Amino acid sequence: MRISELSRRSGVSIPTIKYYLRDGLLPAGRPTAANQAEYDEDHVRRLRLIRSLIGVRGLSVSATKDVLAAVDEQQGDVHLLLGLVLGALPVERSGRPPRRDGAAEPAGAGAAEPAGARDAAEDVAALTAEMGWKTSPNPPAAQVVAETLETMRALGVDYDWRSLVPYAELADRAARLDLDQLPDAGDPLQQAERAVLLTVLLEPALLALRRLAQEHHSALRFGNG
Amino acid sequence: MRISELSRRSGVSIPTIKYYLRDGLLPAGRPTAANQAEYDEDHVRRLRLIRSLIGVRGLSVSATKDVLAAVDEQQGDVHLLLGLVLGALPVERSGRPPRRDGAAEPAGAGAAEPAGARDAAEDVAALTAEMGWKTSPNPPAAQVVAETLETMRALGVDYDWRSLVPYAELADRAARLDLDQLPDAGDPLQQAERAVLLTVLLEPALLALRRLAQEHHSALRFGNG
Repeated sequence: MRISELSRRSGVSIPTIKYYLRDGLLPAGRPTAANQAEYDEDHVRRLRLIRSLIGVRGLSVSATKDVLAAVDEQQGDVHLLLGLVLGALPVERSGRPPRRDGAAEPAGAGAAEPAGARDAAEDVAALTAEMGWKTSPNPPAAQVVAETLETMRALGVDYDWRSLVPYAELADRAARLDLDQLPDAGDPLQQAERAVLLTVLLEPALLALRRLAQEHHSALRFGNG
Repeated sequence: MRISELSRRSGVSIPTIKYYLRDGLLPAGRPTAANQAEYDEDHVRRLRLIRSLIGVRGLSVSATKDVLAAVDEQQGDVHLLLGLVLGALPVERSGRPPRRDGAAEPAGAGAAEPAGARDAAEDVAALTAEMGWKTSPNPPAAQVVAETLETMRALGVDYDWRSLVPYAELADRAARLDLDQLPDAGDPLQQAERAVLLTVLLEPALLALRRLAQEHHSALRFGNG
């Protein structure tokens, strides 16, 4: 197909496609005339993956390049490919920790912080052990869980890893649902794209579904009508 | 207690407490001397709630004021209180929709967009009906789900509301877990604070747990070792 058709099929504008071609993100097409080239389905798929990494997830062009280079190398090893795509995506930290205002800290509070962080890391290790989850060492996601536990405690909420076990069980089922939707054979680019979509794009929707369910169950439990 | 003790207990600095007092976010203490006042447990709790709304969730001071005023009015009606706290919190939209690049759109594609949005809204209505969820009209969370479905389709993924039903079932269980952790009687400020913490602060941790589980199950299914 010509570049105009590639643009139509992928939803990426011609100037942006030309930029990706110059930058090496997208391999060149097969030259057919002085200023023309022929593109194929692989170009469409790769453009969609680039678009989901940059446009949906907000990765930089250079981070996207790294991911794509690694995808090319890992063709055929689905686990490595997924680990790569999942690992390349920094976990969203939408909950900012409470502002720590030096002036308000009692004397000696500064010294207590590393202990809190250490406790939280141990808590996450206990949680993943309880769940039987085997992960890479120090994944960013574990850090997020540790930070949440730390923040909860800083806010005076009595919360430890045991409180998260029922949520971890739901997360375990969600992850199995996610993977059920990946074709376990087939084009690695397509799998990588689908993994990005399912991990990243679904995230706001999953939280939104929880909000809808909270509203419903709150009405059932506490509603007067 | 004096303001210094209030600062220590709440983790909020004295200058910030004075700012909240001037701004009316925090009710004045009981005057004891020319420049001194006595504060109580209600002040500690209210400061913690202010801190979680502003510091954790990133609400503006004026939005926080609105929420607190409403909390004061709704004392005793837990459902209204929670609806308020939950509704006051805009749903995080971490997944940006793919960039729509005018130049790349085929002729007539612009006209198709409203239909896509309408289909997505109908999809969400079908999903909440299937789940038996009763919610307020047009909650922001429903809009997030609709946008996700729309984006999925724009990226060429075959996805409709039925694909989300298993996730909605998990969300339903998560919401019930959340509400189990709210004291169903007691101080409304404390309940409001706990609702904020459980809805907002847990969100990044829930997504992080899913990532950890994804990594584990991906290794089980696709790993070579």
